[in-house]
Amino acid sequence: MMRWVLLSGTAWVALALGADAQDISISGTAEAGLSFDSDADDEITFENDIDFVITGSGQSDTGFEFGAFIELDEDTTGGGTGPNNGVEDAEVFFSGRFGTFTLGDIDPATDGFGINDIGFSGLGVDDVAEQFRNATAGADVLYTYSAGGFTIVASAEVGDQQSLGLSAEYATGPINLGIGYVDDSDEDNSAVSLKAGYSFGRVAVSGLYSDWSEGSQGYGVDVTVDTGPARVTAAWAQASGTAADAEDGVGDAYGIGVDLPMGGGLTLSGGLGRIETDAVGDGAKTVADFGVTMSF
Amino acid sequence: MMRWVLLSGTAWVALALGADAQDISISGTAEAGLSFDSDADDEITFENDIDFVITGSGQSDTGFEFGAFIELDEDTTGGGTGPNNGVEDAEVFFSGRFGTFTLGDIDPATDGFGINDIGFSGLGVDDVAEQFRNATAGADVLYTYSAGGFTIVASAEVGDQQSLGLSAEYATGPINLGIGYVDDSDEDNSAVSLKAGYSFGRVAVSGLYSDWSEGSQGYGVDVTVDTGPARVTAAWAQASGTAADAEDGVGDAYGIGVDLPMGGGLTLSGGLGRIETDAVGDGAKTVADFGVTMSF
Amino acid sequence: MMRWVLLSGTAWVALALGADAQDISISGTAEAGLSFDSDADDEITFENDIDFVITGSGQSDTGFEFGAFIELDEDTTGGGTGPNNGVEDAEVFFSGRFGTFTLGDIDPATDGFGINDIGFSGLGVDDVAEQFRNATAGADVLYTYSAGGFTIVASAEVGDQQSLGLSAEYATGPINLGIGYVDDSDEDNSAVSLKAGYSFGRVAVSGLYSDWSEGSQGYGVDVTVDTGPARVTAAWAQASGTAADAEDGVGDAYGIGVDLPMGGGLTLSGGLGRIETDAVGDGAKTVADFGVTMSF
Repeated sequence: MMRWVLLSGTAWVALALGADAQDISISGTAEAGLSFDSDADDEITFENDIDFVITGSGQSDTGFEFGAFIELDEDTTGGGTGPNNGVEDAEVFFSGRFGTFTLGDIDPATDGFGINDIGFSGLGVDDVAEQFRNATAGADVLYTYSAGGFTIVASAEVGDQQSLGLSAEYATGPINLGIGYVDDSDEDNSAVSLKAGYSFGRVAVSGLYSDWSEGSQGYGVDVTVDTGPARVTAAWAQASGTAADAEDGVGDAYGIGVDLPMGGGLTLSGGLGRIETDAVGDGAKTVADFGVTMSF
Repeated sequence: MMRWVLLSGTAWVALALGADAQDISISGTAEAGLSFDSDADDEITFENDIDFVITGSGQSDTGFEFGAFIELDEDTTGGGTGPNNGVEDAEVFFSGRFGTFTLGDIDPATDGFGINDIGFSGLGVDDVAEQFRNATAGADVLYTYSAGGFTIVASAEVGDQQSLGLSAEYATGPINLGIGYVDDSDEDNSAVSLKAGYSFGRVAVSGLYSDWSEGSQGYGVDVTVDTGPARVTAAWAQASGTAADAEDGVGDAYGIGVDLPMGGGLTLSGGLGRIETDAVGDGAKTVADFGVTMSF
Repeated sequence: MMRWVLLSGTAWVALALGADAQDISISGTAEAGLSFDSDADDEITFENDIDFVITGSGQSDTGFEFGAFIELDEDTTGGGTGPNNGVEDAEVFFSGRFGTFTLGDIDPATDGFGINDIGFSGLGVDDVAEQFRNATAGADVLYTYSAGGFTIVASAEVGDQQSLGLSAEYATGPINLGIGYVDDSDEDNSAVSLKAGYSFGRVAVSGLYSDWSEGSQGYGVDVTVDTGPARVTAAWAQASGTAADAEDGVGDAYGIGVDLPMGGGLTLSGGLGRIETDAVGDGAKTVADFGVTMSF
């Protein structure tokens, strides 16, 4: 169904070709700034990553919501030639009292287990701890249901590649706890992850532990202090065994970052970190960034 | 001309930088579900295809409409690496009492001749009959004019590649008839197509016949029964001679599908078909799908 | 922050999930028509170029504007396989009483120095004169400040590739003057450019002179006469020394074009030109085009 929006002078006139409750909306995020990497050929680079999401949605006669979205991504990191450029990440969803189903080329149920990013771009500290959480699994379908402080997420990959994922989280007052399990049956490996968080006043602490069946473990802890005008985050991560992601490697990583919300969705961020994994040529490198993030 | 839409609280305020009647609108479609192909390495696959179209339009001082659109397509079929991904299908159009001109890298006048799809994804039954309708012609310009039940479509490809197309359709009450001709002069081949349709109460029947100058013919018939809550479609197609599209091949194809409109633009669809063409390794294969289509 | 726009009947209802003044807007341009090039294998081609820009913007607590945009480009020129296809040109901007900062993979401060295009597609006449203005420099950051008729633009490229650019323009009544300088320090070359314009009644004249440190110079002049219903533009360009852009070459180029605004953002345009540079196989070629441009 085509929908035309006519703009005449200063008035919006919407002509819906039908009585269905349907929508198209756009949201977006942007980040831009300078990155420093002591191990790179170009130590200082300017990075820019802008994403817009176009979402269509509607409501069925029986009252559940459904919709689909695509992501428009332009990332100048690495000369803008990376995989994260173009029209991508198409997903379809259904939402109602039964929960939410999401279908697409998506991540498994355990993908939400992680620790906080440092700086505007993440700096890669959290990735060291998070690399084992999804084993080698993907997902075609994700199901989420929340009630009474509990959130259950289940995922499945069908067809030739087959995997299953399941996570359960519970949040009450200042405490949140979670456990996740993912099993990639066609590549025969699995991972168990635990997470825990506690907040007291202006301070929040969270931790992650993942155990991958290939003999690897990842750990991570972050502490965030909200001082009012600024938010300070420190994170530490460690991985042992065989790296799941050759880019992250195993070893230690830690860092500290500051975020200053400027209002209207704009945040000024800076971070400083140290990556001491076997993926770094000299055994250790310093990373830093300074820039902004925006949300629309 | 830049146009800013300011959102403050719950009110839209539109600031047009000029008095021109101009518009930008977005529409979309999505389909997602499981496909089965007995001849494929991965018999069952999850497929997902989401398209959004951004259209800009305006009205000239002399009163005709004009505009342009692009399509944003993300298709996970075949791993999302196919040709139908990204920003594509740019077209420009002019519309008035003189009819409608469309300019772009488009299909010729005969491209509208076809039979109904089966299932949410089509299953390829209709393609067997439709492969000859356009000969090898493309089009840069398409002209459409409708009056008194008649619709005339003319197309032309200019420059080094040259082709012409012409079709005429007539609809009156339950009957519609059409004839189309396309000639690709630089590749020296042509095709004639005939179509006919008749509807009586809840039943509609349509047929297609194409004769390609390379010694090939395609036939197809479909029957649709609208039971109220569901729409059942059966289709049969046959091609003889040399295949125009190696992927379709020549031979028989038939299938049956059910569509259940759920309201709000959502339709639940399933189909089952049999493809018996020389493009199938074992001479015949079973295809099926089950999923949803959405329009926004 | 996600924002949903619900369309019910003929009324827009905007639900902002927060009180922030944020926006997403879309604007677009399109051009389509026939191009003639006496030196090409395909002398006459149909060209089509459609661009939409999605912009997200907001206002910080301290009152400055910020935002980001991406460009969606589909260009059938050269079969639609050129670099100008897809999601591209991501930029972030900040604007306030301090001026405007733009960050992205952008052009340096001197990129605005040029002469008018001929025809709907430009025909390449202006490119001959403009090829030296930016030396080999790019930019990651651009700063613009305007006050009292003066406009200052500064640009910088940081990291491994380093360049600086600066331009100053002054406009008063019918006169505008500009000087620009760009220095690419990692490739060790620079360029100085001068521009001047004068308008008297319906006639406007502008000129450009660029001197590139590699021993090349580019000159160009254009004259535009606005007859009321139509705008006639004649341009002449010359380049000497070593070509900065092998596609343009050095030598002469001249042409004349007519633009007819049709209202609503639609303009009918045609141009005729002669390119006599060493980039042309036979020493000289005739180029022409006829088509439309649209803005939304």
